[in-house]
Amino acid sequence: MSTNQLDKKSQAWSALFSEPMSELVKRYTSSVFFDKRMWAADIEGSLAHAAMLSAQGIIGAQDLADIQRGMAQIRAEIESGQFEWKLELEDVHLNIEARLTQLVGDAGKRLHTGRSRNDQVATDVRLWLRSEIDQISVLLADMQRALLAAAADHTETVMPGFTHMQVAQPVSFAHHMLAYVEMFARDAERLADVRKRVNRLPLGAAALAGTSYPLDREAVARALGFDGVCQNSLDAVSDRDFAIEFTSFSTLVMIHVSRLAEEIVLWMSQNFGFINLSDRYCTGSSIMPQKRNPDVAELARGKSGRVVGHLMGLITLMKGQPLTYNKDNQEDKEPLFDTVDTVKDTLRIMAEMIGGEVAADGSRSGGLVVKADAMERAALRGYATATDLADYLVKKGLPFRDAHEVVAHAVKEGLKLGVDLAELPLATLQGFHASITDDVFEVLTLRGSLNARNVLGGTAPSQARAQIARHQARLA
Amino acid sequence: MSTNQLDKKSQAWSALFSEPMSELVKRYTSSVFFDKRMWAADIEGSLAHAAMLSAQGIIGAQDLADIQRGMAQIRAEIESGQFEWKLELEDVHLNIEARLTQLVGDAGKRLHTGRSRNDQVATDVRLWLRSEIDQISVLLADMQRALLAAAADHTETVMPGFTHMQVAQPVSFAHHMLAYVEMFARDAERLADVRKRVNRLPLGAAALAGTSYPLDREAVARALGFDGVCQNSLDAVSDRDFAIEFTSFSTLVMIHVSRLAEEIVLWMSQNFGFINLSDRYCTGSSIMPQKRNPDVAELARGKSGRVVGHLMGLITLMKGQPLTYNKDNQEDKEPLFDTVDTVKDTLRIMAEMIGGEVAADGSRSGGLVVKADAMERAALRGYATATDLADYLVKKGLPFRDAHEVVAHAVKEGLKLGVDLAELPLATLQGFHASITDDVFEVLTLRGSLNARNVLGGTAPSQARAQIARHQARLA
Amino acid sequence: MSTNQLDKKSQAWSALFSEPMSELVKRYTSSVFFDKRMWAADIEGSLAHAAMLSAQGIIGAQDLADIQRGMAQIRAEIESGQFEWKLELEDVHLNIEARLTQLVGDAGKRLHTGRSRNDQVATDVRLWLRSEIDQISVLLADMQRALLAAAADHTETVMPGFTHMQVAQPVSFAHHMLAYVEMFARDAERLADVRKRVNRLPLGAAALAGTSYPLDREAVARALGFDGVCQNSLDAVSDRDFAIEFTSFSTLVMIHVSRLAEEIVLWMSQNFGFINLSDRYCTGSSIMPQKRNPDVAELARGKSGRVVGHLMGLITLMKGQPLTYNKDNQEDKEPLFDTVDTVKDTLRIMAEMIGGEVAADGSRSGGLVVKADAMERAALRGYATATDLADYLVKKGLPFRDAHEVVAHAVKEGLKLGVDLAELPLATLQGFHASITDDVFEVLTLRGSLNARNVLGGTAPSQARAQIARHQARLA
Amino acid sequence: MSTNQLDKKSQAWSALFSEPMSELVKRYTSSVFFDKRMWAADIEGSLAHAAMLSAQGIIGAQDLADIQRGMAQIRAEIESGQFEWKLELEDVHLNIEARLTQLVGDAGKRLHTGRSRNDQVATDVRLWLRSEIDQISVLLADMQRALLAAAADHTETVMPGFTHMQVAQPVSFAHHMLAYVEMFARDAERLADVRKRVNRLPLGAAALAGTSYPLDREAVARALGFDGVCQNSLDAVSDRDFAIEFTSFSTLVMIHVSRLAEEIVLWMSQNFGFINLSDRYCTGSSIMPQKRNPDVAELARGKSGRVVGHLMGLITLMKGQPLTYNKDNQEDKEPLFDTVDTVKDTLRIMAEMIGGEVAADGSRSGGLVVKADAMERAALRGYATATDLADYLVKKGLPFRDAHEVVAHAVKEGLKLGVDLAELPLATLQGFHASITDDVFEVLTLRGSLNARNVLGGTAPSQARAQIARHQARLA
Repeated sequence: MSTNQLDKKSQAWSALFSEPMSELVKRYTSSVFFDKRMWAADIEGSLAHAAMLSAQGIIGAQDLADIQRGMAQIRAEIESGQFEWKLELEDVHLNIEARLTQLVGDAGKRLHTGRSRNDQVATDVRLWLRSEIDQISVLLADMQRALLAAAADHTETVMPGFTHMQVAQPVSFAHHMLAYVEMFARDAERLADVRKRVNRLPLGAAALAGTSYPLDREAVARALGFDGVCQNSLDAVSDRDFAIEFTSFSTLVMIHVSRLAEEIVLWMSQNFGFINLSDRYCTGSSIMPQKRNPDVAELARGKSGRVVGHLMGLITLMKGQPLTYNKDNQEDKEPLFDTVDTVKDTLRIMAEMIGGEVAADGSRSGGLVVKADAMERAALRGYATATDLADYLVKKGLPFRDAHEVVAHAVKEGLKLGVDLAELPLATLQGFHASITDDVFEVLTLRGSLNARNVLGGTAPSQARAQIARHQARLA
Repeated sequence: MSTNQLDKKSQAWSALFSEPMSELVKRYTSSVFFDKRMWAADIEGSLAHAAMLSAQGIIGAQDLADIQRGMAQIRAEIESGQFEWKLELEDVHLNIEARLTQLVGDAGKRLHTGRSRNDQVATDVRLWLRSEIDQISVLLADMQRALLAAAADHTETVMPGFTHMQVAQPVSFAHHMLAYVEMFARDAERLADVRKRVNRLPLGAAALAGTSYPLDREAVARALGFDGVCQNSLDAVSDRDFAIEFTSFSTLVMIHVSRLAEEIVLWMSQNFGFINLSDRYCTGSSIMPQKRNPDVAELARGKSGRVVGHLMGLITLMKGQPLTYNKDNQEDKEPLFDTVDTVKDTLRIMAEMIGGEVAADGSRSGGLVVKADAMERAALRGYATATDLADYLVKKGLPFRDAHEVVAHAVKEGLKLGVDLAELPLATLQGFHASITDDVFEVLTLRGSLNARNVLGGTAPSQARAQIARHQARLA
Repeated sequence: MSTNQLDKKSQAWSALFSEPMSELVKRYTSSVFFDKRMWAADIEGSLAHAAMLSAQGIIGAQDLADIQRGMAQIRAEIESGQFEWKLELEDVHLNIEARLTQLVGDAGKRLHTGRSRNDQVATDVRLWLRSEIDQISVLLADMQRALLAAAADHTETVMPGFTHMQVAQPVSFAHHMLAYVEMFARDAERLADVRKRVNRLPLGAAALAGTSYPLDREAVARALGFDGVCQNSLDAVSDRDFAIEFTSFSTLVMIHVSRLAEEIVLWMSQNFGFINLSDRYCTGSSIMPQKRNPDVAELARGKSGRVVGHLMGLITLMKGQPLTYNKDNQEDKEPLFDTVDTVKDTLRIMAEMIGGEVAADGSRSGGLVVKADAMERAALRGYATATDLADYLVKKGLPFRDAHEVVAHAVKEGLKLGVDLAELPLATLQGFHASITDDVFEVLTLRGSLNARNVLGGTAPSQARAQIARHQARLA
Repeated sequence: MSTNQLDKKSQAWSALFSEPMSELVKRYTSSVFFDKRMWAADIEGSLAHAAMLSAQGIIGAQDLADIQRGMAQIRAEIESGQFEWKLELEDVHLNIEARLTQLVGDAGKRLHTGRSRNDQVATDVRLWLRSEIDQISVLLADMQRALLAAAADHTETVMPGFTHMQVAQPVSFAHHMLAYVEMFARDAERLADVRKRVNRLPLGAAALAGTSYPLDREAVARALGFDGVCQNSLDAVSDRDFAIEFTSFSTLVMIHVSRLAEEIVLWMSQNFGFINLSDRYCTGSSIMPQKRNPDVAELARGKSGRVVGHLMGLITLMKGQPLTYNKDNQEDKEPLFDTVDTVKDTLRIMAEMIGGEVAADGSRSGGLVVKADAMERAALRGYATATDLADYLVKKGLPFRDAHEVVAHAVKEGLKLGVDLAELPLATLQGFHASITDDVFEVLTLRGSLNARNVLGGTAPSQARAQIARHQARLA
């Protein structure tokens, strides 16, 4: 084994090199301390490659058996924490291959036949990411379920709907939660689309041009559960679209989280007082003894920046790169890994904070506490039913644009007197338009307004209930 | 009409306002000079809304007829350039509605029944973007066709395949072009996925909460060709995912363009000399008389920055926004419009520069000129067939890792003597490994190497031809 | 003049070109419709160059006189709107030079001696940007003055200071406004630093390598008010640091604006009700007659995205560009121009909305209306003086960490009883710690708390007054 | 100590809290495993605070002595790796404070008097960053020295100067290196500007409003080497401008690195062959035995994406944040830390790769190897002296624009014949313009062209030597 290329790496890359890498360079170019998390994918991919090599007669049956035996031992060593990761072996791939050769000799050196690190790393990243995507998919469903749980008891809980942060029209708290269900449902759709393009096999592209060995790439794809193979070897080793596309998906998830988190922070503020959070999701202050801060929501909002940053980093990375593989691409991993971690942790903690912890029997405890009274009081400020009065006038025959102007006068009077529209005497209202009669007061109540918006997607309780049922069925 | 809200906008927003907007504010908040490009979508959406209102008995048949008549005239006025766009009417929507009311009176004022600008603008943007998506889809196919045209004659044209910009292995020019076909084909897939989520109808969400009129939203969706309706009114008016998702798609298109453009610029450089561009795609210098610069490719590369910037702008816009509509969202339009323009112009000009102008009969003229000799000469530098020698040794029984090391020694000798591997005497080669025999020289030629990589997705001419045929069938 | 290179541009770039640019390419590569805004800088730069050429004897005195005469006419034509900008002449520089040659013949053709468009455009952008920087510097000072005007009457107006959007400690409204003065003051410092690096002369670098004419670059720098000359010609024509640095500065300005705008939007919300805005800065709703929306603040917040996007675009543009000038760099202009416009408009409108319009006599009308009662009421919620109680206990001898815990118990009791700390009976307070005596109630009032924070930079009225005076002196 | 707030943190934040943080929340909100790198700054800041508290009579002399003793022990524990960092104590600050209280009792609990974590963390980050800035400042100077070393021997080495990657005019390799010296010199200027704004003391702002203790903030500032104190407490605890500004600076450094790295990669490519790198900075391929890849340069180029991403992350973080401290801000640290690490490592490795390792005696070994012959050969392609011919004609009396056109015809002829301008017979040249005489051939040589550009900042060897001397003096 003394001529083995990997053994001699600490001295020089190959016979072509007259000196070893400088220590500084080793540290700068090494990726093993972050890419070792892909070890299971690396072993899985290598075993599928070896099985195919053997089936195609490129390596012998004994070689395959040796490789399988060696990999089983390496897996055990890594899982038990005994595997010794070496900086000078650069990355997860060479660390595992070097150990394999140590364990099983020539069979280990035959594993790399017909492949290169370029297609190997691309395969490993895709295998690893696919598995993470499947976990995130579950977390997105959990998030939607938490929101539905928060919605279910509040289809008749009235809160002010805002536009421009001004009270606009009454809506139900359930309806508000359902808006976020839509967002995370779209994220789940997008994730399924991303998965299709992640799940293609680069292996067999070798360094860049394909290989002269009679590989059966489609067999490897089937063995590893890929939907298909990358059809161009140059593209296969240099494509990082899937990383950018996944991070774009993640950015939208985090933007949605940032919007929800912003609202939770506002609702917890004494000036809203719409909700409370369990102590376990709050922190205090080192100096102000009265503080209970919604740290989790703030941090989740802040972490949107982290993922946006990773997206921009990956885009910058790929801009203007000539084909094919360039070392720049090694920089795809850390942002991708951190994006996955951030999205998973954030979805998990936000779902739990909103919907509570889910017990084995499916019951939930400790979620968002809704202060229905405070929400309703807030909805009574700001003339939330003004549009209802305009619609009332339209039904009496006024063109909408004229009705709008009539109501503006009524609101002006209300502001002058410091009362809501519903508190103006009928005679006063009739002074703005003669067609107003006693039945107007029904449309001016919050619940009247809520019930009236019974259009598909509207805020009427019956609509919210229908949406909750639809989503529950979808997520079942 | 004297009480019409819109007529009085130049004085004050409504009776509630005691003074008009300041001139500075009018200019700062107005969008009409960029959003007027959505006029056709605005009219189309309004007509569908009016037809539904009439079918539901919310407005009368005469109202509908008046609206249709008025809109026909407005369309004619806009198309002929006679429509007077007014800054003080803020946006395309109010400009058209105000003109309609001028033309047809009360019917015009009834058009806005059951809708708000919030759902109207969301509908218009989606209608407009859907139409642009369909055009971009065609341009992406044209781009792929141009690349296939450039590939078709060059399945046997050898060029150096690079990794790390170092000569790696011989590939065909066709194979290289096919890598870009893969990229733009993925873009087209992504665009189809984006379209699904763009093509949902927000109309009927009204300001934010739905409406009390008995709208038939699904009828409007069908009339306008939408795949479905937005299921939550709060989300419908505040969602801008579709804009971000479209711009993410566009960013990847432009990243692909930037890579291709980078290569074109390099290949045109005297140090490569791999291609030539028609004069019509080049510019000269104001000072250096000898210059012929590939300006189009450079500018296309640079324009990737513009689109990336728009993506970042849109993400920043939405981060942390509480529900529902906030005026911030008006800032979605300029980046979206410019992204569409940039992607369309860039795809068109790059396709033409590479594949030539397409005549009515489908023939092409003026595309990329491939300098096959220069490419082949370059492939002869850099020991491009070293891997072939290693594979040769593996087939003779050496483990790959040992073969790799043997070849490194051979390359070192070649470098010392200043000759290629194929130029080393057999005896010398045998000095590195005894198993080398006379048949080695076949595998050391460029064409031998090319033909050998006959794996699916590899660079062998037969593989490239198969891929070209597959893509042509797909795009037919 | 028939052999004039510019005249023939519509046919072909130079004798070297066999065909004209395609129409598509002309449109794609042309910049005249956005870069013509630099016309004044272009003329100024050309006149200084011509004067130096003449002083150095490179062109004759008559040539200089002709050039000056021609430029005077061109200036008049542009100012009166009669100048005909031509797309096929690409940019502002060639448009002006071509017209000059039309007007004054050979002297015009001599103007370009010893320079190239590469150094000319770099010079023009810097001249133009320097002038805009000086305007923005004034606007930043106006912004600070507006905030100081809003602060001046409110050094004793108490509002809740928030951390985590939870009521933390009482602060004055003046103190809050002064925080933003600090931010914009830092921006002004940064702008002065940016200006130093913008204000260096590239002219004389010619295309990239300098020129063989005996130019006096330092004379040109003096004539144009530059602080010095760019010391390396390759860098001079390819450097766009100044554009990125200016846009980084602008991003921080807009981030500060976004924070202030966020607070204005919240404070206008019925749930805060801390302020009111003049009608002239508000808009209504097309459907909800009661709405008065703080559109200007929302739009200003949203426009931060636009500037961040431009920064990202410029960075992407320059990443990985080899020396020297590449056409990519033409893409620096639109983001830079739009950044300047956005920052100027936004500073102007925000300053006016906050500080009111400034009359000729310096008086202000129409600024932010502070609702001091609502602010004070809000400060009474949330146990804002809890820290004061802890500090009180420390002064009685408790270690801070123990005092913190004692107060937490007191707040818990207050929450249970639904009263503020100041409303707990002395006996109850003494139950938490025996050292508490009757003087505790003074420290528990809002004003007591405010006055107590009399450290440099603290919220005590005397501190705020000192800061206002300091800033006013600085800005005088 | 049983009532100590910190001891009980694992149970609940304070008496106000009824349950501990969930484990998930602890992990999500904890920062100790990344912010512990600021431990030295934390201790330094605490000691200065304690000394001032004692000098002001707020704590006793014995308290100060105890705190100093405790901190000395903690410092020793951390340096020897014996300090036990606890996740449940959240961050570096509480970990150190809790240990201090364990070691010295009540004195430890008194340390936090008059400060909060909000101003403490802001102080620590600034102290830490200031120290890193001073190290980066040294590395930037080293980088410039490395480039000057590479330049010093090559003021007469001719290479092609490129615009649009087309051969433009001959330049010297020294001149090219000097362009990068200018860039890094500007970076150093910017860093000095950033440092001014980093180096201001937030301590004394307490939680947000200042404190009621009679602190002497200016004394603390002097003790810690700050240039001044933050003048507004709300701003002091919520400002992260300095982090964004530092990361903007870092982005420009990395953009410059990416340009230089791009050129190194190209120059190493067989198609240029302009330089060689020492083996210690190269890597090989796992499959292609002939490869020597410039991995370091590629990775450095790729790492620009990482820093750009951090900048965008920080900007996104701060956008729209209301005052004052929000937990979002904890997310400032990881991007800042990684930016510092990346910039330092990258500058160090690039400087060494270009200028070689510097021995104790100042001698350098192992830097960039310049292949002067290949550079000169490349400069002979592409009619690099065409501008010289035009200038020659101008000196004979032609207007520049006419001369430009004459030379274009000459180049066309050269292209037709496949020869350089200098290889055209005099008679042929005279056919293009009668004024051409025998002295033309001198200006058509590469060295003639180089020497001619003797303007300030031009490429003439004398200019390059003057610049090298100027820079060396500046960096001495």
